[in-house]
Amino acid sequence: MKIAIIGLGLIGASMAKALRGSATITGIDADGRTVRQALDDGVIASGSTDMAAAAHSDAVVIAVPVCSIVDAAAEVIRHIGTDTVLTDTGSTKAHIVERIEAMSPCFVGSHPIAGKENPGYAHSQEDLFRGAMTIITPTGRSRRDCVERVTSLWETCGTRIQSMDPLTHDRLMAVISHMPHLLSYASMKLADELHIHRQLLGAGFRDFTRIAASDPIMWRDIFSDNREHILPLIDTYVQELLHLRTLIEQDRTKDLEAALSSYAQIRRTLYGHPR
Amino acid sequence: MKIAIIGLGLIGASMAKALRGSATITGIDADGRTVRQALDDGVIASGSTDMAAAAHSDAVVIAVPVCSIVDAAAEVIRHIGTDTVLTDTGSTKAHIVERIEAMSPCFVGSHPIAGKENPGYAHSQEDLFRGAMTIITPTGRSRRDCVERVTSLWETCGTRIQSMDPLTHDRLMAVISHMPHLLSYASMKLADELHIHRQLLGAGFRDFTRIAASDPIMWRDIFSDNREHILPLIDTYVQELLHLRTLIEQDRTKDLEAALSSYAQIRRTLYGHPR
Repeated sequence: MKIAIIGLGLIGASMAKALRGSATITGIDADGRTVRQALDDGVIASGSTDMAAAAHSDAVVIAVPVCSIVDAAAEVIRHIGTDTVLTDTGSTKAHIVERIEAMSPCFVGSHPIAGKENPGYAHSQEDLFRGAMTIITPTGRSRRDCVERVTSLWETCGTRIQSMDPLTHDRLMAVISHMPHLLSYASMKLADELHIHRQLLGAGFRDFTRIAASDPIMWRDIFSDNREHILPLIDTYVQELLHLRTLIEQDRTKDLEAALSSYAQIRRTLYGHPR
Repeated sequence: MKIAIIGLGLIGASMAKALRGSATITGIDADGRTVRQALDDGVIASGSTDMAAAAHSDAVVIAVPVCSIVDAAAEVIRHIGTDTVLTDTGSTKAHIVERIEAMSPCFVGSHPIAGKENPGYAHSQEDLFRGAMTIITPTGRSRRDCVERVTSLWETCGTRIQSMDPLTHDRLMAVISHMPHLLSYASMKLADELHIHRQLLGAGFRDFTRIAASDPIMWRDIFSDNREHILPLIDTYVQELLHLRTLIEQDRTKDLEAALSSYAQIRRTLYGHPR
């Protein structure tokens, strides 16, 4: 089995490391130094900066930033056969799936729920996906054999699979992932002077703000691509915050306690510790 | 040395455990069952539900919820001498210090930067304070020997000490602790339906929302007591979020990337990883 991975960043290189041994990996990256490094490290069997290197692959994985996925697909499709299964690893799905499906007969979108703040080849690791979930987003147009091959690819990487339609994925991820990142990012507006009090930062601050260190380019693309789900959530959140502001300002302690209790209850239920 | 601890919750009982061996601890709690449990566990040498048990102590620590601290101080002061050092463990300081200083000649406010989501005696632990910071908030009126004795108390618990005036403490904690809690709490408004997708929640969501499980009564009191610092921060935060909303809606990708980069830079600088 020959697999081409386009984009040897955190996700692409971690996939190459996870699949090594189960498949022959061709790595394609715009940066020739990354390709050479991956070859030197034995992470890929062959490598190139040219999409033509994906020819004759059984499967092609596009692991580039969200805003470049469709362009990369259009280019690599010229080099591969109609039986080559094609997938991506983008954090948004509806627009990407709609556009690539129009070009490829064997495309199924994927989103592995794994990652960390530090992007890039240097931070890739063989066990990044172990025990994680991958969402795949087949549609009514997806060929069953292609869905099965993408499923099998992710299982080989060590992930479990959940399937949902692309729009459901984007609506869900806006809540689970995109809003927490946006809210944590924005909180840094308040934190500009805190470096002089660094030793006072507790575990609460550390964890709440951890994702504010995430890759700005990756998240610019995600917020932009999924804006139709994110914008109304911002409005709901602002409304809730201003409601809390009113309760605090007017010293409505009973209502404030009720609100905080309901939040705590939701969080505890999510992680199986209701009180 | 005889130390009375009023309130055998997470903080008070953890102090009792940390000080055991260095001092003879009297535990006072409104709940007689908690007092009995602490006696049975050997966490305190003597215990009572009556403030009078604090008489003849060298030091008294008030470790009750923020909104009860001043009342507890007023009551215990009737039983102790003017040379008994008095401190509290509240997460807000300006109002508490101002009011207790007017009643006691040897009071110095404290705030140990330690804790966890689960309150109560059952979750107390001997090493809760080890390596943590305690902020003490002496004022121009504080007696030097009292400041030294409070410092020594916290050092015996294993914490390092930072001293600042009460208002600076409250302004700083609004940013470091109170706003992150409020923002994380409010995000649960978006998460009500997520329990059916529990297995898709990643590390980002988990850490961002961890403090949303915090004790509602404790945080009701903190938000209420420190409202003068929290309300303007809510306004600044909402303004920033609506600015981001505009950038996303209008697809101003360059400005959005610049904003996200500056947030990520602030977070990375805080934790010593600038990029």
